[in-house]
Amino acid sequence: MNRTDSGGSVTVVGLGPGDPRLLTESARAALDAAQDLIGYHPYVARVPERDGLVRHSTDNRVELDRARHALELAMSGRHVAVVSGGDPGVFAMAAALFEAVEHGPLEWRALDIRVEPGITAMLAAAARLGAPLGGDFCALSLSDNLKPWEVVTARLEAVFRAGFAVALYNPISSARPWQLGRALALAAEILPATTPVIFARAVTRPDESVRVLTLAEARTAPADMATMILIGTSTTRLIEREGGVPFVYTPRSVAGA
Amino acid sequence: MNRTDSGGSVTVVGLGPGDPRLLTESARAALDAAQDLIGYHPYVARVPERDGLVRHSTDNRVELDRARHALELAMSGRHVAVVSGGDPGVFAMAAALFEAVEHGPLEWRALDIRVEPGITAMLAAAARLGAPLGGDFCALSLSDNLKPWEVVTARLEAVFRAGFAVALYNPISSARPWQLGRALALAAEILPATTPVIFARAVTRPDESVRVLTLAEARTAPADMATMILIGTSTTRLIEREGGVPFVYTPRSVAGA
Repeated sequence: MNRTDSGGSVTVVGLGPGDPRLLTESARAALDAAQDLIGYHPYVARVPERDGLVRHSTDNRVELDRARHALELAMSGRHVAVVSGGDPGVFAMAAALFEAVEHGPLEWRALDIRVEPGITAMLAAAARLGAPLGGDFCALSLSDNLKPWEVVTARLEAVFRAGFAVALYNPISSARPWQLGRALALAAEILPATTPVIFARAVTRPDESVRVLTLAEARTAPADMATMILIGTSTTRLIEREGGVPFVYTPRSVAGA
Repeated sequence: MNRTDSGGSVTVVGLGPGDPRLLTESARAALDAAQDLIGYHPYVARVPERDGLVRHSTDNRVELDRARHALELAMSGRHVAVVSGGDPGVFAMAAALFEAVEHGPLEWRALDIRVEPGITAMLAAAARLGAPLGGDFCALSLSDNLKPWEVVTARLEAVFRAGFAVALYNPISSARPWQLGRALALAAEILPATTPVIFARAVTRPDESVRVLTLAEARTAPADMATMILIGTSTTRLIEREGGVPFVYTPRSVAGA
């Protein structure tokens, strides 16, 4: 492939859920090779300072500006790492970066642009509990900043009825306080009240808290931006343990095969 | 939590898509600490030999036996790693292990059982291309060994109609030669013929091959067990590049917000 003359590069790096031991070796190497670090400030803060690394922290609302900034730096010859929590391809910076490329100058397409995958929040949360996403599952962002709420509810209804487990990203924020309650109410119209629902907050970080609830209990349980919510299916099982959080898994089998 | 007296443990370890640099540090540490290694032989073969590591390779069809074997070894005091490609919670060994725990002796529930997440195939494939799973998406196993084919098609129809991108695991095998063709024919009834479809074979391994097709082209394209298939949405975009595979991304936005 032709590369641009700039010699620069952009790598979108998945930092995983928080514990630095969940970074891949390849992601770590990409961070070590970067000259510029761009991202939402809590993610930038996860990368240790070192000589020669220029840090550009921003707030949470300017993904496209951040992407364009990274591409302009790369055009000037810099090696840029754009950092994302979890996996950059899952409700994170990779889509914003390629959106900027599509709508930007043609020469950006010849840049060396890569994505380093990471452990996304739903799979980190699932691993903590057992295998709640062991059958077919969906990942859905509950934010209606970028899609109409009617699309969110139509998608939720389709997948609850079809028997998928569902991972809810961006479940709630101060600007979006009611969406999670509506989503769980919709789930309760379709799924048994005993369906297991996992509220996994800050998984693998020092303030981690993980709760296994029924769907009925989940409807009044507190959540925040750091909470990943996994809604099981009618076949999801709990394995009770003395003195511990139960294991949760969704069997691979669906009756009738 | 109470632990069993055995002192043994089982860790289900995600090896990622193939490139050893995509292992997490935590997964590598779990492999280094294991005394016994259990898994389907190509996965066991990925872990280097060392003194004191006992290897138990099996074929692909005995997940529950393999899980019980791991739990019995742990009950005898051994530290066991059960290895899975990708992420063990996504159509892999974790669900089988917890199924064995649920239906096994009660003392198995007190064992130290952990899951080490890994980079699952759909996210490794997505990272290679750009961000094709950048919006809402589903992961579905096309195998009808463990669920009726009618459930597979009902699920596919629901998520194609609702606008999810779809990652197809287990798309084809010598025992299941026609299911992929039917799934793509169903997609073609619902989605535009120009919808991007990615056939990503052996991603990050030496024999990797990645193709970006239209849905119409995909219907006659060859695939095998090592192929991960990502079906885009009506909004998925291609960014053509001189002399290279195009970038593919699904925008975060859905019209109307």
